[in-house]
Amino acid sequence: MAKETKRHLFGASAKKRIELIPVVGIGEVERGQNLGKLIIDACAKMRFKIQDRDIIVVTHKVVSKAEGRVLELAKVTPSKFALKAGRHIKKDPRHVEVVLSEARRLVKMVRGLILAETSHGFVCANAGVDQSNVKRGMVVLLPRKPDISARKIRDEIRKTLGREVAVIISDTFGRPWREGQTDVAIGLSGIDPFRDYRGMKDQYGYELAASVINVADELASAAELCMNKLDRNPVVIVRGYDYVTADISARVLARKPSRDLFR
Amino acid sequence: MAKETKRHLFGASAKKRIELIPVVGIGEVERGQNLGKLIIDACAKMRFKIQDRDIIVVTHKVVSKAEGRVLELAKVTPSKFALKAGRHIKKDPRHVEVVLSEARRLVKMVRGLILAETSHGFVCANAGVDQSNVKRGMVVLLPRKPDISARKIRDEIRKTLGREVAVIISDTFGRPWREGQTDVAIGLSGIDPFRDYRGMKDQYGYELAASVINVADELASAAELCMNKLDRNPVVIVRGYDYVTADISARVLARKPSRDLFR
Repeated sequence: MAKETKRHLFGASAKKRIELIPVVGIGEVERGQNLGKLIIDACAKMRFKIQDRDIIVVTHKVVSKAEGRVLELAKVTPSKFALKAGRHIKKDPRHVEVVLSEARRLVKMVRGLILAETSHGFVCANAGVDQSNVKRGMVVLLPRKPDISARKIRDEIRKTLGREVAVIISDTFGRPWREGQTDVAIGLSGIDPFRDYRGMKDQYGYELAASVINVADELASAAELCMNKLDRNPVVIVRGYDYVTADISARVLARKPSRDLFR
Repeated sequence: MAKETKRHLFGASAKKRIELIPVVGIGEVERGQNLGKLIIDACAKMRFKIQDRDIIVVTHKVVSKAEGRVLELAKVTPSKFALKAGRHIKKDPRHVEVVLSEARRLVKMVRGLILAETSHGFVCANAGVDQSNVKRGMVVLLPRKPDISARKIRDEIRKTLGREVAVIISDTFGRPWREGQTDVAIGLSGIDPFRDYRGMKDQYGYELAASVINVADELASAAELCMNKLDRNPVVIVRGYDYVTADISARVLARKPSRDLFR
């Protein structure tokens, strides 16, 4: 992190309020739709003006739908392994097959759940393959390149409205040791996902050795509070958070096994 | 979760904005101070009126300081094991000793870090024993009973202002698989920490089998965005989040090893 950025953190900005604004009225997203445009139109209908430095948090489900990352289970032919494993862990073998196609490593297989590392490097349930909030018999996959999905939305907003925003694509992940799921960032454009206090000193002169905050995950979690899995509320705008503009892939949020002391 | 509560989630409330408001001017907290009163006074100076159903998120550090949960390392005598282990993992043996006194189980010991389960059941770095944001040579422990700490603040606000709020005590935890830390809830009063979608159906009639959101952790993370580890900004008020009032201990947020598929 640059010196300028670090100074930035000391500023009056920390005293500002942050607002979480749900974007309503996006409706069902279909393959091929321009999500940036859908967001712009929904904001216009709400008479809500997107501003510079807003952070647009978009749940991956609408991104995946727009990108056609939806599969009909009836069209999936499970491999021999998927059939065996599905029987063993009591999971639809076709769902198992799709998980295998999305995973680059299986971490754990237990009743009803495959914990897997996706091609992006994220460790999550069923490699992100999800059956909720999609037509019956279908599964939603994660976007192939969530950073690019985020950038397209950001570019559309710059092109159409002339506003410079950041975009976070989010998903709901489980975690070890803690009950309940929280939303995390799986795609980024225009924002440094970390606030890095290492080497900085607190008010007592103590160097903050271990403090790197994953603000991208925190922003995704904050936005989730405004999304309601039962309403269709896939986009939330975070206003007032003083982030650092950067082009960093969300892949850096996946901890490398070699440096994962918590694993 | 009661039926009434579940119906609640369908309401128009999901379309509301949420605001995160940092409480400024609390200053250094000393042993024996009444934290509820400090928060009330700081809000009054800000000309900010606490309202019913506000959620007050308080970083544990000020709670621990008010409760005298601060130790001088010079007064700690390390055990033989702490001396050996400290040498081996390159960590001050007195710090190791304090971690041992706070832990009920060690999960992992690696260079500079002990991953431990606290007496509350939380798995975190150094059993929550922290050297930052405290006078040099001192360490801060987690509050002994963070739910009670939360309840005291809540009671003080009810007594003094006649307002019914919820209180979350937060801490910054690392996680497996994800880089960077995020804030989580370690103490609760007046709020159901989960939004439980199990058994509910999405718009396609699909039952949301695996969706239990830990909104307490998400609220703690959201609040962290308004706290600045370098400024003194230990309290954030979340306004507009439609939580369910309940008296549930934050201990339920610690996942039991037996049902921890992610472990």
